Amino acid sequence: MRARQIFEACLYAEDLEAAAAFYQRVLGLEIVSLSAGRGFALRCGDGVVLIFNPQRTRINDMNVPVHGCTGAGHLAFLAQEHELPGWRAHLQQCGVPIEREVRWPEGGTSLYFRDPAGNSLELAPPTLWGFAGRRLASE
Amino acid sequence: MRARQIFEACLYAEDLEAAAAFYQRVLGLEIVSLSAGRGFALRCGDGVVLIFNPQRTRINDMNVPVHGCTGAGHLAFLAQEHELPGWRAHLQQCGVPIEREVRWPEGGTSLYFRDPAGNSLELAPPTLWGFAGRRLASE
Repeated sequence: MRARQIFEACLYAEDLEAAAAFYQRVLGLEIVSLSAGRGFALRCGDGVVLIFNPQRTRINDMNVPVHGCTGAGHLAFLAQEHELPGWRAHLQQCGVPIEREVRWPEGGTSLYFRDPAGNSLELAPPTLWGFAGRRLASE
Repeated sequence: MRARQIFEACLYAEDLEAAAAFYQRVLGLEIVSLSAGRGFALRCGDGVVLIFNPQRTRINDMNVPVHGCTGAGHLAFLAQEHELPGWRAHLQQCGVPIEREVRWPEGGTSLYFRDPAGNSLELAPPTLWGFAGRRLASE
């Protein structure tokens, strides 16, 4: 058996309102499900990004197993090289500082920035991790 | 601007050896990059799952921003309904208990189990989150 595709990636934020504003405005993602006080799901390509308040998901009052993290998590999104100028301008316009830019030996550049909860987000080139560069499905 | 695809989803484990054995044997994923003591990357479809020791990724000694979580994280992989009998048998054979099975109102079933670090993993049906059921690229 082989797990064939990531479907849900999860980050945690205690201030869900700030997170919702950020992921919609800065990352352009659409909320497809919202559970007040608990968290929300954002559609991203073929999958979803889940943002949960870990104080809620640690409580065993739902039909699903408990989980919940503290500390800065990490999540990377694909971005083509030609999109990076647009992302730099957009992040600046949104008042989101770029924490780091990394030029990879195998080619391509990653931009790193933080969400309001301190999670480390990355826009990463499709040539990372030994992948042949490829076009995104939505291009 | 819109983040168009999840590329890296990240979980944390202090016992990297146990995690590496689990993700290779139980989830059938291939390690494509390994940084001894720090973590490893597993290819999963169009993206990678990163497993890091948070004690290492919190130290600012690399070219990339610090991050690191404690507690049980969450990650879901796509699985078609017809794969679930195979997964149930495989998990049992690997000695991994299924913590919960959830039959969703919109159709489809999720299997939940834990990795050795306690992270909550899910095999989720492609009809969740309002997605139309679809075939995986690798089918």
